[in-house]
Amino acid sequence: MSEERGPGPGAGTTSARPPMRDALVAAAFQLFLERGYEATTVDDIVTLAGVGRRSFFRYFPSKEDVVFPDHERSLKDMTAFLDADEDDDEPVARVCDAARLVLRMYTENPTFSVQRYRLTKSVPGLRAYELSVVWRYERAMAAYLRRRFAGWSDGDLRADVIAAAVVAAHNNALRSWLRSGGEGDAEAAVDHALEFVRQSWAPDGTESDAATRDDRDVVVLIAKRRTPMWRVVREIEATLDEA
Amino acid sequence: MSEERGPGPGAGTTSARPPMRDALVAAAFQLFLERGYEATTVDDIVTLAGVGRRSFFRYFPSKEDVVFPDHERSLKDMTAFLDADEDDDEPVARVCDAARLVLRMYTENPTFSVQRYRLTKSVPGLRAYELSVVWRYERAMAAYLRRRFAGWSDGDLRADVIAAAVVAAHNNALRSWLRSGGEGDAEAAVDHALEFVRQSWAPDGTESDAATRDDRDVVVLIAKRRTPMWRVVREIEATLDEA
Repeated sequence: MSEERGPGPGAGTTSARPPMRDALVAAAFQLFLERGYEATTVDDIVTLAGVGRRSFFRYFPSKEDVVFPDHERSLKDMTAFLDADEDDDEPVARVCDAARLVLRMYTENPTFSVQRYRLTKSVPGLRAYELSVVWRYERAMAAYLRRRFAGWSDGDLRADVIAAAVVAAHNNALRSWLRSGGEGDAEAAVDHALEFVRQSWAPDGTESDAATRDDRDVVVLIAKRRTPMWRVVREIEATLDEA
Repeated sequence: MSEERGPGPGAGTTSARPPMRDALVAAAFQLFLERGYEATTVDDIVTLAGVGRRSFFRYFPSKEDVVFPDHERSLKDMTAFLDADEDDDEPVARVCDAARLVLRMYTENPTFSVQRYRLTKSVPGLRAYELSVVWRYERAMAAYLRRRFAGWSDGDLRADVIAAAVVAAHNNALRSWLRSGGEGDAEAAVDHALEFVRQSWAPDGTESDAATRDDRDVVVLIAKRRTPMWRVVREIEATLDEA
């Protein structure tokens, strides 16, 4: 990402978004950085961008929305990705991939993402707005997982917990990267964090059955205490043989 | 909980909270239910409660805060509970117990909790407020777990993911109970949900070691794929012998 490039979410990507929308975002962030978020009005933004107030509100319902110009698109992309799954996709891996789509929105333009992170941390109203955005991502993932876990015992519970864990893992890695000023490999950090979550839930890891899972070089066996030893050994042998 | 009892968070508990504060909450909820949240002003509330505006703002910074009168106390109680832990407490079990403390705030007064749930669902501003409250609970749990997991590999990540999972499990059970109108046993439902989370993370469940854990009637064995069969069998036999 070039240092000279202005903020604006379109920088660094070939964008189909209207140039006026990008110009409004760029003007808004220039003013937020110069004067602070609270001291900047929508009138200031449109004056700098050289457009009318009506143009601003055509793209953004409020001043807060201009801070998060890409979340609506990102949320739509993520939902479409989840809706397009095949039944043989492993559901936890699928929501991890969905989280990677969201990450891409941040890594497309590190300068803008870091500026927004600092702004959001310092303005309580923006923190609240961001929490509601994160909540919508989490609910979209949970809705997908609820469909995939329909009929499982504790399917809804499992869906809600895994969605929350995926979001928390993604945000743990994303925040470290943003705090560092966008240095380092965000994708690798998020992959590592998501793998931690994926390994916590076996594909068929219902507690009701003896089950095995393949986590690279680890075998996990879950069995009722009263399971006869011969069955346990047979399960393990069968699994190790597959290695 | 008696049907005749008014809403108000103090009902059903022996409370050390000022009666005027409870009267303001009761008046606010009476008006929210009669006229709707948006149509009710602080002036309406203080008029019904028979006190001055200054009294309202002594207890509540804004109209939103009167909807969640007990969260500050609950958050303080939870943080104190987590700070008071002994090093031999199992950390995941401890945050599950912390979540149960929060639940108690809801079950102390089911009528009030159900009314607030319906109100919060229908007013976007209150949804956002509630998300920020939930976020503070989650961060308090994560901060505790980060201390306890300090020095572990991926300690912060593990802390954030488990805190999010505990909150999601708690809220899954709590929301079902609130949706049902406060029928059924909320404690049992939350216990079940939290047990699901606790079982996902063994006390010493680092993937690097063969480890066993005791989850009531379930045995989980984690072993490297290359672990010799005789060692796996010995591990299982040792564990089952303890039963």
